[in-house]
Amino acid sequence: MTDRLYEGKAKILYSTEDPQVLLVHFKDDATAFNAQKKGTIEKKGEYNCRIATYILQFLSAKGIPNHFIAQVSPTEMRVKALQIIPIEVVVRNIAAGSLCKRLGIELGMVLPNPIVEFYYKNDSLGDPLITTDHIALLELATPSQVEQLKHYGLTINAHLQQFFGQCRLNLVDFKLEFGLDTQGEVILADEISPDTCRLWDRDTNDPDQRVLDKDRFRQNLGQESAAYQEVLRRIVEST
Amino acid sequence: MTDRLYEGKAKILYSTEDPQVLLVHFKDDATAFNAQKKGTIEKKGEYNCRIATYILQFLSAKGIPNHFIAQVSPTEMRVKALQIIPIEVVVRNIAAGSLCKRLGIELGMVLPNPIVEFYYKNDSLGDPLITTDHIALLELATPSQVEQLKHYGLTINAHLQQFFGQCRLNLVDFKLEFGLDTQGEVILADEISPDTCRLWDRDTNDPDQRVLDKDRFRQNLGQESAAYQEVLRRIVEST
Repeated sequence: MTDRLYEGKAKILYSTEDPQVLLVHFKDDATAFNAQKKGTIEKKGEYNCRIATYILQFLSAKGIPNHFIAQVSPTEMRVKALQIIPIEVVVRNIAAGSLCKRLGIELGMVLPNPIVEFYYKNDSLGDPLITTDHIALLELATPSQVEQLKHYGLTINAHLQQFFGQCRLNLVDFKLEFGLDTQGEVILADEISPDTCRLWDRDTNDPDQRVLDKDRFRQNLGQESAAYQEVLRRIVEST
Repeated sequence: MTDRLYEGKAKILYSTEDPQVLLVHFKDDATAFNAQKKGTIEKKGEYNCRIATYILQFLSAKGIPNHFIAQVSPTEMRVKALQIIPIEVVVRNIAAGSLCKRLGIELGMVLPNPIVEFYYKNDSLGDPLITTDHIALLELATPSQVEQLKHYGLTINAHLQQFFGQCRLNLVDFKLEFGLDTQGEVILADEISPDTCRLWDRDTNDPDQRVLDKDRFRQNLGQESAAYQEVLRRIVEST
């Protein structure tokens, strides 16, 4: 007996026989610009489920507690049920997307240091940038949890740069979500995939060709499915 | 011999015979929504010049270094020439304006603690909210200067709450700008007035009547000039 608990833009969450465990189904659906643009990317669910599995297992091995339990079908994984913290943690190594728009800096500028941003996970408000003062005001997390989010963001960034570097991919930026387990510990949740990371091919400088992530869909660059497949292929090859 | 150095939305800056001193002329012009709305408020220049004079002198007496030297005409003051830090420091006690829009909270919610926000002073980007990481990336200020901006913001807030409290006005929020003097010290600059503060009359709860600041202009509430005059009247009366 499983119930559909929540359908998001790219995933569906189901309950399982164990209240501490959820089943995540990865969809081929893609959305962008706060769901103003909608479409599908062929086999994305399958590619992302496998990519996220590789990455979450890699991070577990590096000592980063996360919700992954097991991949149980081509598009499904079992994960620990968590109380999700409604903060999107974005880590950036290279300027792209909203950072360029906000600060007026050039796409592709290598940041002297990685930066961590917090966004309020709230579709109706358009997931706005928030500060630690806003987080305290809304009681989204305690100050010590915010410190942990930032620390995990930077630590995971270092691990993922190594991981994707072996795949000849530059990790431009990525989004993380976290939750609290029954003990109140902060645990990495959600997926890590070309839906949530900007990944640029190190083997080309062509600004369109290098894009191997959801920006192909956002920017109508075509070959979306092939890009996700290529990321998976490189991960399989390098591990 | 004076040269017009810069014309802003509400003020004009002139050089003086002393390169360390500028002349500020307060205009009646009013703008809102990043200058998409434009108009004038009768005698605003005069009211704001006098109000800012009272407040900057009050803050000097409280030990807050600022650029004020002297009021020299009904709409003009002499100030120290500073190298302006391109950060707007916003301090909030009560939810209003962009905070309500960003976080989806109710107008008038009293914040459990004052919050400080930083905005990038950049008209073409629409003065976006920025984090301390963004400030470091753009090299707008050093980490120690950012700490000073925050500290000054909160200290000035405490002084201004006392100041306006004596005028039976609630200080909802306000914007500060700072600059560096020739020694590199952080000094309060710009004006403090109903153009840069939200001030609510304590003697009424009517959400339109209580507004004694530029929101009257932003929201087409009418009686703009009378509101500025009333703030000045209460300041004169209480000092």
